[in-house]
Amino acid sequence: MVKKSLPLSKVYGLLEPGPVVLVTTSSKGRANIMTMSWHMMIDFEPPIVGCVISNRNYTFDILKVTKECVINIPTVELAEKVVGCGNTSGRTVDKFKVFGLTEASASCVKAPLICECYANLECKVVDGKMVSKYNLFILEVLKAWINPAKKDAQTIHHRGRGTFMVAGETIKLPSKMK
Amino acid sequence: MVKKSLPLSKVYGLLEPGPVVLVTTSSKGRANIMTMSWHMMIDFEPPIVGCVISNRNYTFDILKVTKECVINIPTVELAEKVVGCGNTSGRTVDKFKVFGLTEASASCVKAPLICECYANLECKVVDGKMVSKYNLFILEVLKAWINPAKKDAQTIHHRGRGTFMVAGETIKLPSKMK
Repeated sequence: MVKKSLPLSKVYGLLEPGPVVLVTTSSKGRANIMTMSWHMMIDFEPPIVGCVISNRNYTFDILKVTKECVINIPTVELAEKVVGCGNTSGRTVDKFKVFGLTEASASCVKAPLICECYANLECKVVDGKMVSKYNLFILEVLKAWINPAKKDAQTIHHRGRGTFMVAGETIKLPSKMK
Repeated sequence: MVKKSLPLSKVYGLLEPGPVVLVTTSSKGRANIMTMSWHMMIDFEPPIVGCVISNRNYTFDILKVTKECVINIPTVELAEKVVGCGNTSGRTVDKFKVFGLTEASASCVKAPLICECYANLECKVVDGKMVSKYNLFILEVLKAWINPAKKDAQTIHHRGRGTFMVAGETIKLPSKMK
């Protein structure tokens, strides 16, 4: 699958609906994956994203040190792998191998893209001041990739304890809202 | 419609999927409504929520002073009113009146509940330190209400410029994730 570069001004439209995402990091040449739902847009362009990552997670430790990650957005076909990544730790498991996911090199960060995800956002940590109090990282999206064939992607949205809402129909209303 | 109290431990399941919400505030006895998509969970219990509200919005000014709001979660039947609230300002419009929405008294805050929304979260601002830099308010949910008839509510999720994804089917996978 060939992905194309997505203008940074369009990134908010991918995260604002609240999909579950897979965060990839890289430490000492070894990649890891974490499932994440606690994220939000903070600014449009450059796209600034807030995300909360438990300090019990391996990704928390890596992100604090490397200050780089990729936010990969999966669709419903990947739901079992998404849950698998959420139920295991990169401290003991090579998640790319165990869940049969494919790494691709990012252009701005060392963390890899997950090929099977329909969109990938290369990010760096730009503000770590809220990490100690809230486990809250402020990220800037440096580069965005999308599979142009996936319009209205069927993202999944976590309602808790393995229950997910799958993205349904799309409606469009006249609006001045960005 | 009679709503019941929802345990605070279950609030994350309402916001984690990323629905568009309507934020109500009250200032000098006058209620206002703002449409919001930039929010995320920060902690489970008590439920802590981060939200970004543009400093151009009337709600920003009110929230800074009153430090209280209600997060109301609408379903797809309210989509036109949600867009209407996003395209008007409470500085010049009484949105409850113009959009035919019904106020109900909250139990812990002065801001009103919107009756037509299937869930309502009464909130206070617990940390305003990130407001000046990111327009980011940290809220604690004090009390939550839900319409018990609305399981798997058809929330709407903003993809930008008036395009919304409507919540589709629900799937459940075995998971240890909270």
